[in-house]
Amino acid sequence: MARLKGFQKLTLIDDALQKWLNVLQIKKPREATAPLNEALNRVLATDVIAKEDLPRFDKSAVDGYALKTQDTIGASQFKPVTFQITESEVGVKQARQIWTGNPLPKGANAVVMIENTKKTDGKLEVWVQLATGGNVSKKGEDVKKAEKILKAGTRLNPYHLALLAAMGNSEVKVAEKPRIAILATGNELAEAGNKPSGNQIFDSNRVMLSAMCRELGAEPVDLGIAKDDINEIAEKLGIGLQECDAVITTGGTSVGELDLVPDVVNNSGKPGVVVHGLALRPAMPTAVAAVDGKPVVILSGNPVAAVIGFEVFVRPLVCKMLGMSREEPRPTVNAVMTRKIAAALGRRTFVRVRVTQKNGKFLAEPVSARGSGAISTMTRGNGFVIVPENREGVTEGEIVMVRLFGNVEEVR
Amino acid sequence: MARLKGFQKLTLIDDALQKWLNVLQIKKPREATAPLNEALNRVLATDVIAKEDLPRFDKSAVDGYALKTQDTIGASQFKPVTFQITESEVGVKQARQIWTGNPLPKGANAVVMIENTKKTDGKLEVWVQLATGGNVSKKGEDVKKAEKILKAGTRLNPYHLALLAAMGNSEVKVAEKPRIAILATGNELAEAGNKPSGNQIFDSNRVMLSAMCRELGAEPVDLGIAKDDINEIAEKLGIGLQECDAVITTGGTSVGELDLVPDVVNNSGKPGVVVHGLALRPAMPTAVAAVDGKPVVILSGNPVAAVIGFEVFVRPLVCKMLGMSREEPRPTVNAVMTRKIAAALGRRTFVRVRVTQKNGKFLAEPVSARGSGAISTMTRGNGFVIVPENREGVTEGEIVMVRLFGNVEEVR
Repeated sequence: MARLKGFQKLTLIDDALQKWLNVLQIKKPREATAPLNEALNRVLATDVIAKEDLPRFDKSAVDGYALKTQDTIGASQFKPVTFQITESEVGVKQARQIWTGNPLPKGANAVVMIENTKKTDGKLEVWVQLATGGNVSKKGEDVKKAEKILKAGTRLNPYHLALLAAMGNSEVKVAEKPRIAILATGNELAEAGNKPSGNQIFDSNRVMLSAMCRELGAEPVDLGIAKDDINEIAEKLGIGLQECDAVITTGGTSVGELDLVPDVVNNSGKPGVVVHGLALRPAMPTAVAAVDGKPVVILSGNPVAAVIGFEVFVRPLVCKMLGMSREEPRPTVNAVMTRKIAAALGRRTFVRVRVTQKNGKFLAEPVSARGSGAISTMTRGNGFVIVPENREGVTEGEIVMVRLFGNVEEVR
Repeated sequence: MARLKGFQKLTLIDDALQKWLNVLQIKKPREATAPLNEALNRVLATDVIAKEDLPRFDKSAVDGYALKTQDTIGASQFKPVTFQITESEVGVKQARQIWTGNPLPKGANAVVMIENTKKTDGKLEVWVQLATGGNVSKKGEDVKKAEKILKAGTRLNPYHLALLAAMGNSEVKVAEKPRIAILATGNELAEAGNKPSGNQIFDSNRVMLSAMCRELGAEPVDLGIAKDDINEIAEKLGIGLQECDAVITTGGTSVGELDLVPDVVNNSGKPGVVVHGLALRPAMPTAVAAVDGKPVVILSGNPVAAVIGFEVFVRPLVCKMLGMSREEPRPTVNAVMTRKIAAALGRRTFVRVRVTQKNGKFLAEPVSARGSGAISTMTRGNGFVIVPENREGVTEGEIVMVRLFGNVEEVR
């Protein structure tokens, strides 16, 4: 019960994160093979080196006629140059029909677009002068053989997949999804679909944290709800530690008599809790721990504090487990604060704002008015303003960087 | 062969989109029921109205003691006020222990944090003065009963799911995923995994467009590759039209002899091709069509042009099919152009840029130098600068709005 009187000392976020990551034994991710069609948003396990040039040959970028540029000198709509049409190697004053993507025939060094020609009696009038390489995609202009085209740790978007496909790949080596166990604790929690008793609330943290894990490319494993009971928490935590790569808990992490989770984690293995009590608002009672090298994150039961704790600790953790060299950035915008916001000196404060776009400018309006712990601040908002430890707030009209977690609407 | 001499007239994008959407018969999406755990990124089919207040009762936001605020007047660390501890209704100068989330007991109107108290001999010293409602989350402060908490057409993020769970929902009505058939055409295309003959290239469009459909929440259906052959294209298009809600094709859409797709679409049903030839760079030969009310988008075989055609036509289409009231915005930033870019007057030009963040500023560097049709411009870039029809380009140092399709890295 030493914690009963509150946290003696709050740890700064950067220090806490560093200290925690240092005790974790995060290995290079296991490799999995994914067909390209199932690889969207997966993370590359290895660098990808081009096996050949792309394009593999000089090819036409248009539909038209391949020819020698010197034969087009002076050509115009008023003074067309006439070419013989050939079906083999392109000689002087000869042109050969070619379609987009076809290899450039021998003897030619440019392609005239069909729109700039006129075909009459087996001959071709050309109306424009061309430069060498005109309308030709050069061998290797897209990708050069042996070039590193994608780096390990890249999250694959549709265009990465296209590039891999264009190089002839039908599958790709990706990082296996880390499995993250999620346990909610608290006597007050009811399972959705059941009828809650008078004092109960529905658990919303597991579904939320599972989705947040999925967004990052981890695989959530639901450990259910545990009562505020040491044995029940220990048992479920044990399952999570055994079957998964990391465990997240919610609730029971403050300084009350029912806040049992840190003690249970400490009893589960070494080193146990690494930092408990953070210079963070909200989410001060968050704790980060390790049990035999496996990460355990003890989040607040308050859904907004759980979001912030996840943002600060689980997000960089999962990126690291996926083999990324640094935390994947969320989209950010610079926006003008429409109202001042207060923050506590010495704490890092996450303020939920709603960013809108008006006449090309971004405006950020705080949404935390109606109750700071309310999950509706996350559904009405679309971004965080992160007030650093050395600031007591942000003034109205100040330009702030907003970390976005939702779409920005244009307003008129 | 009327098209052989090029497009007679290019249609402006906004006109083309409007004309096309007008002939389509896009119905309200079919509803599906998704468990909350599988509803991430699905789109709400109906408005969600709060069935009750959230919180459902006044509850403590902290661990501490519930009491009457008038009894704390003047209390400080130097002049504590002493309370009797009670386990029932809170009377004058009485305090009752309470944990975060517990209902506020009768008689109390605030909660003092445990850190601001000292318990001795069954009595409680309180060191701070409290205001009415202090450390209490009021009934309904998060959500009021009968309030519309989420709108139909909302794409569900983890926080929306949390709100739905907090209201006791275990499932949610979402829009069924539109099924979109994807057909690549072209004699030059080889299937990844096979060995290409001399002139062949690997098809990369189907895997890319499938992933782009998935990103938007549609379900891609692969129709494979068709040779430049009227019957083969017609047969595969027919399957797509019969089994899916829309069809996307790539290739065979320009003005060459092998550009058969528009004709095949015209022969498949009314009205057929609505617009062919766009004031768009790249992606000029894109066509949009409808067959008996079903959308058909005929994209260029050039992967970058296919991306732009998708961005301009398929993206708003899918959003509409999902029941969104308007096209879902991509993240955007205002960035400084590091180099000038040229564009054609009268065309809408999509320039690929790489946006980086430096000292809080966003910089946009064009990446189209090495070959405009190259898919690597999409993998090296992370955003589009869209140059409007009335501009011939963008100057160096100009601030432009960038539509992002990838992460923005911070550079030093």
